[in-house]
Amino acid sequence: MNKMYVIKIGGRVIDDDALLSEFLDQFVQIEEPKILVHGGGSQATAVARAMGIDVKMTNGRRITDADTLEIVTMVYGGLINKTLVAQIQKRGCNAIGLSGADGNIIRAHKRESHPVDYGHVGDIDQVHTDTLETFLDNGLTTVIAPLTHDGNGALLNTNADTIAAMIATAFTTKYELELITCFEQAGVMESRDEMQSVLHELSYEYFTALKNAGHVTDGMIPKIETGFQALESGVSDVKICYAGSLLSVLQGTSRGRYTTFTRKKDRSYES
Amino acid sequence: MNKMYVIKIGGRVIDDDALLSEFLDQFVQIEEPKILVHGGGSQATAVARAMGIDVKMTNGRRITDADTLEIVTMVYGGLINKTLVAQIQKRGCNAIGLSGADGNIIRAHKRESHPVDYGHVGDIDQVHTDTLETFLDNGLTTVIAPLTHDGNGALLNTNADTIAAMIATAFTTKYELELITCFEQAGVMESRDEMQSVLHELSYEYFTALKNAGHVTDGMIPKIETGFQALESGVSDVKICYAGSLLSVLQGTSRGRYTTFTRKKDRSYES
Repeated sequence: MNKMYVIKIGGRVIDDDALLSEFLDQFVQIEEPKILVHGGGSQATAVARAMGIDVKMTNGRRITDADTLEIVTMVYGGLINKTLVAQIQKRGCNAIGLSGADGNIIRAHKRESHPVDYGHVGDIDQVHTDTLETFLDNGLTTVIAPLTHDGNGALLNTNADTIAAMIATAFTTKYELELITCFEQAGVMESRDEMQSVLHELSYEYFTALKNAGHVTDGMIPKIETGFQALESGVSDVKICYAGSLLSVLQGTSRGRYTTFTRKKDRSYES
Repeated sequence: MNKMYVIKIGGRVIDDDALLSEFLDQFVQIEEPKILVHGGGSQATAVARAMGIDVKMTNGRRITDADTLEIVTMVYGGLINKTLVAQIQKRGCNAIGLSGADGNIIRAHKRESHPVDYGHVGDIDQVHTDTLETFLDNGLTTVIAPLTHDGNGALLNTNADTIAAMIATAFTTKYELELITCFEQAGVMESRDEMQSVLHELSYEYFTALKNAGHVTDGMIPKIETGFQALESGVSDVKICYAGSLLSVLQGTSRGRYTTFTRKKDRSYES
C-alpha cells in the first residue's frame, strides 16, 4: 500500500511564527499524500478575552457555550485555517482548508451533557474519506480545522488530536498510515520539561506508568491515549515530534529526538 | 451549453434568520451546477465593535487595516462560511466552504494605495475554474467567502459582488451562466424604498440616468456596475431579486418582481 501522512499541529506551533514557518517549509516537501489537522486553543482564548467573553474550563477542558462556539468557528475555521492555507499556497502547495462540515467530511454528535456538560462539543461518528480522497486525487492538500457538524445544521467544537487520529484510522484500508503530532517539544518526556529525557519509544504500559507517577499530565494524556487508539486501529506508525523536526523524523535522519509509539505485545504470544 | 448559476447573498440576508432559511430551502433545490458567494459586512462590524476595534470607512467603503483583515478572515471565512455550509448540509446538499486562497481559486493583488488606501483589499487577477469544476464534477456545491489571496501568503478582503461576477464570467466558456444577486429588496427600484417601483428590466443607459438623478445610490452603484460588466463579458443573464423569491425567479413564475439587466444595444445596429 502507498504511504500517507496525517499530521497535526497544535496552538503553540501556530502561535510561534518562526516555528510555524519552519514547519510549513518542511510540510510542503512531503511528496506522499498528506492531510494537515490544526488546533488553536490559545488564539481562541485571546479573541474571547478581547470580546469580553469568559472562557469556562472544567478539568483543563474548555466548555463550549454558544458564544464560545461562535469564537472557535471564527478562529479555527476562519483565522487559523485560512492563514495556514495562504501560507501553504505561498510555498507552492495547493492547499484547501476545511471544517468537518465541508463536504460532510466529519459527522459528529453533541456529547452527552452528563456527567459534565462540555457544551457544543462533538464526538465523531464517521469520517467520510471519499471526498477527502477526491481532493488527494486532484493534488489538493487538505487543511482541517477542529470543527465538525451533526448533519442537522449545528457545528461542534472537536478535539484536533481526535480528528487527526480518526482521519488516519479511516484511511488505513487504502493507505499505510503514519500519524504525526508536531508540537513545541521534542516528544514525550520521562521527566517533565527535561529535553534530555525524551523517550525514543513509548509503550502503552510505560505510558500508564508515567501517567500514574505524574510525569505525564494534563493535555498530554488524551493526546497520547488518542495516539495509541490509532495504533491499535490500524495506523502503522504514530509519532510525536518537535514541529521543526518534521522532515528529519520522516526521513529517519533525526537522532532519536522524537517519540514513536509501540504496539501492545501480541496477546497470542503471551498465552 | 449546460446552465450554471452563480448566486450571491448579502449581509442583510445572512442577518435575517427567517429570510436566510427561506433562501437556503430554495437554493438547495436548484438542480443545475451552482456556486454560492456570500458577503457579511454587518457581522464583521459587530465583531469589530465587540473587540473594541474601530471600523474605518471612506466613501461608504470599509478600510481593511491589519486588525480588520483578521476580523473579516474570522467572520467571512469562519463564522458565516461554516454556518452556511452546515445549514446547506442539513438540507441534504453537499456544500464545501472556501475562500479564494483555498485551492488557489481566486488570485488577487493588493489594491494600489493611491488615490485612496483601502488597506488589505484585493483586486482579482484570475479565477481558476479547474479546481471549482473538480468540485462541481464531484457533486460538491461551493460556498465562497469574500476573501482572496496574493499567492505570497497574504489574504485580501475582496468585494463579494465582484467575486460572484468574476466567477460567473470565468465559467462562460463552458456553461451558459446566470448571475443572480439575492438581497432583502425585490430588485432595482426607480424610487428608493418604494417596492412598487421595482424595474422589471434595467438597461445600462437607464441605470446611468437613475444614478445621475440620485435614485440609485451608495452600495447599489458598484453592485449594478459589476452586474453589467458580467453581462458584457459573456454571462447570459444577470438578475437582482429578493432572496426569498429565488426559485420563482429561476422558474419564471415570479410576476415581474425582480430586475433583469438588459444588454447594451448592439453597436452595429446603431451605425
